[in-house]
Amino acid sequence: MKKINVAVVGVSGYTGLELIKLLRNHPNFTLNYAGTSEGGGKISDLHPSLLNVMDMKVQKSEPKEIAKSCELAFLALPHKTAMSFAKELLELGVRVIDLSADYRLSLENYEKHYGVHLDKEHLKKAVYGLPELNREKIKKASLVANPGCYPTASILAIAPFAQYIKKNTPIFIDAKSGVSGAGKKLVESSHFVNVNENFISYNALKHRHEPEIAEVLVSQNITNAVYFVPHLLPVTRGMLVSVYMQLNTKIDAFKVLTDFYKNERFIRVRDKAVSLKLTAGTDFCDLFAVEKDDIVFVSSSIDNLLRGASAQAVVNANLMFGFDESVGIPKEAYVP
Amino acid sequence: MKKINVAVVGVSGYTGLELIKLLRNHPNFTLNYAGTSEGGGKISDLHPSLLNVMDMKVQKSEPKEIAKSCELAFLALPHKTAMSFAKELLELGVRVIDLSADYRLSLENYEKHYGVHLDKEHLKKAVYGLPELNREKIKKASLVANPGCYPTASILAIAPFAQYIKKNTPIFIDAKSGVSGAGKKLVESSHFVNVNENFISYNALKHRHEPEIAEVLVSQNITNAVYFVPHLLPVTRGMLVSVYMQLNTKIDAFKVLTDFYKNERFIRVRDKAVSLKLTAGTDFCDLFAVEKDDIVFVSSSIDNLLRGASAQAVVNANLMFGFDESVGIPKEAYVP
Amino acid sequence: MKKINVAVVGVSGYTGLELIKLLRNHPNFTLNYAGTSEGGGKISDLHPSLLNVMDMKVQKSEPKEIAKSCELAFLALPHKTAMSFAKELLELGVRVIDLSADYRLSLENYEKHYGVHLDKEHLKKAVYGLPELNREKIKKASLVANPGCYPTASILAIAPFAQYIKKNTPIFIDAKSGVSGAGKKLVESSHFVNVNENFISYNALKHRHEPEIAEVLVSQNITNAVYFVPHLLPVTRGMLVSVYMQLNTKIDAFKVLTDFYKNERFIRVRDKAVSLKLTAGTDFCDLFAVEKDDIVFVSSSIDNLLRGASAQAVVNANLMFGFDESVGIPKEAYVP
Amino acid sequence: MKKINVAVVGVSGYTGLELIKLLRNHPNFTLNYAGTSEGGGKISDLHPSLLNVMDMKVQKSEPKEIAKSCELAFLALPHKTAMSFAKELLELGVRVIDLSADYRLSLENYEKHYGVHLDKEHLKKAVYGLPELNREKIKKASLVANPGCYPTASILAIAPFAQYIKKNTPIFIDAKSGVSGAGKKLVESSHFVNVNENFISYNALKHRHEPEIAEVLVSQNITNAVYFVPHLLPVTRGMLVSVYMQLNTKIDAFKVLTDFYKNERFIRVRDKAVSLKLTAGTDFCDLFAVEKDDIVFVSSSIDNLLRGASAQAVVNANLMFGFDESVGIPKEAYVP
Repeated sequence: MKKINVAVVGVSGYTGLELIKLLRNHPNFTLNYAGTSEGGGKISDLHPSLLNVMDMKVQKSEPKEIAKSCELAFLALPHKTAMSFAKELLELGVRVIDLSADYRLSLENYEKHYGVHLDKEHLKKAVYGLPELNREKIKKASLVANPGCYPTASILAIAPFAQYIKKNTPIFIDAKSGVSGAGKKLVESSHFVNVNENFISYNALKHRHEPEIAEVLVSQNITNAVYFVPHLLPVTRGMLVSVYMQLNTKIDAFKVLTDFYKNERFIRVRDKAVSLKLTAGTDFCDLFAVEKDDIVFVSSSIDNLLRGASAQAVVNANLMFGFDESVGIPKEAYVP
Repeated sequence: MKKINVAVVGVSGYTGLELIKLLRNHPNFTLNYAGTSEGGGKISDLHPSLLNVMDMKVQKSEPKEIAKSCELAFLALPHKTAMSFAKELLELGVRVIDLSADYRLSLENYEKHYGVHLDKEHLKKAVYGLPELNREKIKKASLVANPGCYPTASILAIAPFAQYIKKNTPIFIDAKSGVSGAGKKLVESSHFVNVNENFISYNALKHRHEPEIAEVLVSQNITNAVYFVPHLLPVTRGMLVSVYMQLNTKIDAFKVLTDFYKNERFIRVRDKAVSLKLTAGTDFCDLFAVEKDDIVFVSSSIDNLLRGASAQAVVNANLMFGFDESVGIPKEAYVP
Repeated sequence: MKKINVAVVGVSGYTGLELIKLLRNHPNFTLNYAGTSEGGGKISDLHPSLLNVMDMKVQKSEPKEIAKSCELAFLALPHKTAMSFAKELLELGVRVIDLSADYRLSLENYEKHYGVHLDKEHLKKAVYGLPELNREKIKKASLVANPGCYPTASILAIAPFAQYIKKNTPIFIDAKSGVSGAGKKLVESSHFVNVNENFISYNALKHRHEPEIAEVLVSQNITNAVYFVPHLLPVTRGMLVSVYMQLNTKIDAFKVLTDFYKNERFIRVRDKAVSLKLTAGTDFCDLFAVEKDDIVFVSSSIDNLLRGASAQAVVNANLMFGFDESVGIPKEAYVP
Repeated sequence: MKKINVAVVGVSGYTGLELIKLLRNHPNFTLNYAGTSEGGGKISDLHPSLLNVMDMKVQKSEPKEIAKSCELAFLALPHKTAMSFAKELLELGVRVIDLSADYRLSLENYEKHYGVHLDKEHLKKAVYGLPELNREKIKKASLVANPGCYPTASILAIAPFAQYIKKNTPIFIDAKSGVSGAGKKLVESSHFVNVNENFISYNALKHRHEPEIAEVLVSQNITNAVYFVPHLLPVTRGMLVSVYMQLNTKIDAFKVLTDFYKNERFIRVRDKAVSLKLTAGTDFCDLFAVEKDDIVFVSSSIDNLLRGASAQAVVNANLMFGFDESVGIPKEAYVP
């Protein structure tokens, strides 16, 4: 089978690294362009773990160069930077999977939470890349907005209960993420001494993933208000999201989940509590639910860098190019 | 001033160790009896960190022996074991602070969640040892039921909002504790490899601290249903509790907290997110709140072994014997 | 190409799990027998991370059954247990890779450090499975003794300096391992609270890997006395070994290493300090050396479960069956 | 008893914080000056854990102001900055305990490893503040050079063996420190993701504590060459140092240690392996030794911020002002 040439723009960060590792082993894609804002050196200079594994050169990211050889570009760039690349690449005929927030929200919500949008044209056509909800649209998309990590874990926990959630009651999401979710930046909140043996909430009820979750839930006919509080876990990797909802009827939450996801290969509904380590290293979203009175608690676990970013992006790429969605997607957790 | 002789029954565990360290430095109490179920050896054999620091002998716990020399006994024993000691000690005229759950609940709730109660007589007279709520009763008590760690952090977060919580709405408590809360037992869930780089909920909506919280809240005129989910943090020490409540009016949550606790020396209301490390090593409960629409989020941080057990017990002892409640109580956190 | 059927005996532990994951993705081997001492259930019952990934049945380990369908058996069993399985399997014509210590030492050293040997016949013919030293012998072996984790990291650090080590001077090895090296047993030394934020030596100058290292070094013409002290790191995975040696001449240690390993694909000589994270998840041994006066310091990093056990075992299997030794062997580290 | 007024210059770092906490509880010293390079705000702004505990104002550090009210100043400043403060304070009659390296080495060694010295006059008179070696000199000193953390742990492990170390053999020190030893700076090597689940050597055979150790050992008649390699542990606090030495005779290492330190209250010789957690939070140095053939291995554990810096500084202050050296010095470890 002919392999598809792809580019990764923004290879210096954690999601860039994960994309590289996934693509290196992918039977249908060939990574033939790796870019950063500066360019220069080899991938193993940026990521010393890849010494003697992947010694490809790093380019100064240039859409025209990418368009010469690649059919698809993954953008692992900061918000705002991504949209200018996406715009130009799309105009050059390159399909795009954007891992930033730039195409995830409605224009109104984007400009309220992130600032002015510079590519309104493509924003309208972007498909939100959560395969369980939008599989058919993704297959035909030129531009996929890869979901945020918190929204991925949260929406997959909530969506199955659409018809059971009591109208006008709040949905509470208490979320916890490993430090890799905050990237490589050297800030006080990522200094080892401040994170280790610690635990703290941040941006309570003000995080920009809250409107992303709410907006996608509306598309699933869930119009309840969403209240979201993230916390920083003293671990490198993984995310656990706790959701609390009020119900309009008695349900068997386990059955609701298993029915809803019965054909999904990257969702595992468990009858015991889910945990970071059972999903870290994979694209799985593990779900667990308990109901009591008219309340349901749902616990959702993903690898923030894989299901929450890079592996989900490659699943989307598989769908866009007509491959089986599980090709090249990791299923074996890092345990122990 | 004459010092009061006290006993610690159950010195081999973590809360026993913390009691020993607190009492060793206390100006008004003298630890002159340290017991375990077996007896034998010295405290520094059980706790090698105390080599050359405290070399007191360990007794086989015997109420009659304790009564000969002690006016007060701290019971750091498992549920069920505690009540038989408490009963005998009280009958011998020794005042008791029980760190187990044996005297915390109404008889009905106790027998529903823990099993048959063997000391119904004293159960009726036990005072729930949360100083901020029951200070005057504690001063006169013969038997103090020292609160659970989760209830301490949760109740202190919720109580100030009594008049503002909307009737008939659920209160959600998403709680996270360090591993020392589970004690020294060698179980799979405390094996390093299973805890490290991991995070998991346990006993969701079924934990026995849920009825303890609910019962105490009723005494504060809060009759809302309480839904409680604890999680295990990959840290040794500390506890962070997130509370989500619906309000019947607009409030300034920070002001509600500061007004409610304006005379309290072991509560700190912060205007930034609270964290484990700022309270670990102290008796402080740090609180932070954010409101949005008709929702309030409250974050509460304590040291699970100190404010959640041993230091709160010594505060209660201070109150019972007429000392200033802050004597000998640690205020300096372990940071960095 | 015809795939080779293989068995893993002892699939419940960490090295068993890693073998399963490696074999599941191996193009030339088919795992068609998974055994434990008790048998029963599925692999995903033992290892919940493999739910929906690998649902193979677990057998009660039985050499005769294995011999019916498998050409090779990996033994991930405790010392002593392994040799009785190995003996029977070999007699039935099944080739064996033993991950225990049972065939690593001379009879004399084995009986001195481990106790009576029950399979002296095969012990004589066993090949020590360190590919860099014994590649050609491994290819023809029926029985490979897979090296211990500490010996692997230590010997690979020392062997290149054979001709430069000063006669009659001691070689010091200060080694540090993650907790997974101690297995799943529930013991005080693996309780999270005892390991976390801690660091400690164990079996100083008395560990049974010391004679294993010394014996293999003799085969490399290094007869110096070896002094070995292991320590327990508060991490799940990884091993770093520091070696201190006195030299008989001035050398360029970096060049000595690069020359010695110039054709090796699973050794990386680095010009910066090596670390756990650059090898965790791979079969690489990363090496770094600094010389000063007549002293050389060598730092060696491996994944204790992969290069120190299961991945090295699969490399040995590749060699035994004539495959390229790197087939199916992981090269991408778990970073970040 | 009249209390002595003291200053801490450089209160924003970790050692500054520890000094504040120690002095706050000290019966004989009063902290009445807290300075930083900028000044402004309160101590609890710099260290939020001290909210409602210590709300003293922070001054812009000014020797003349200090001299008005303080008899002693602790300098918790970077190398180079310390000496200019020390010089001026000493000339104004204030005694000084300097926690930097500025007065620890001979002029020759200082200028070789740190650069030009600007206070050669006082350098000559500075006393190296290791109480076990220099107690009497410290009592009379105007200027105490507080030892480095690695030298403290290393020298205390080596000094007792002075007469038994074989001439002309190297001493190897393999040292491991928690991250707090590197301070608050935001650098890649202290980013949580780079430290967590990792372990790495740094400055192998090139660290500036190597000459400090060697120079002090010469004062103890140990002239052997010292080879020192530090490593970074994924913990916040604590230090473990492994020392390997060759002996000129058979010894009982445990007895050598216990005899040498029989009158010392902050040294504990243990008959089991020493560990970080047994000393973290205290001024103790715990020692353990094993001998084999003509080799001795010594393991030494200290809290890098307390015995390795601030608590040792307060012990020195006690000695300088004629107090019992253990007054106000913590003996209870943070365990669990």
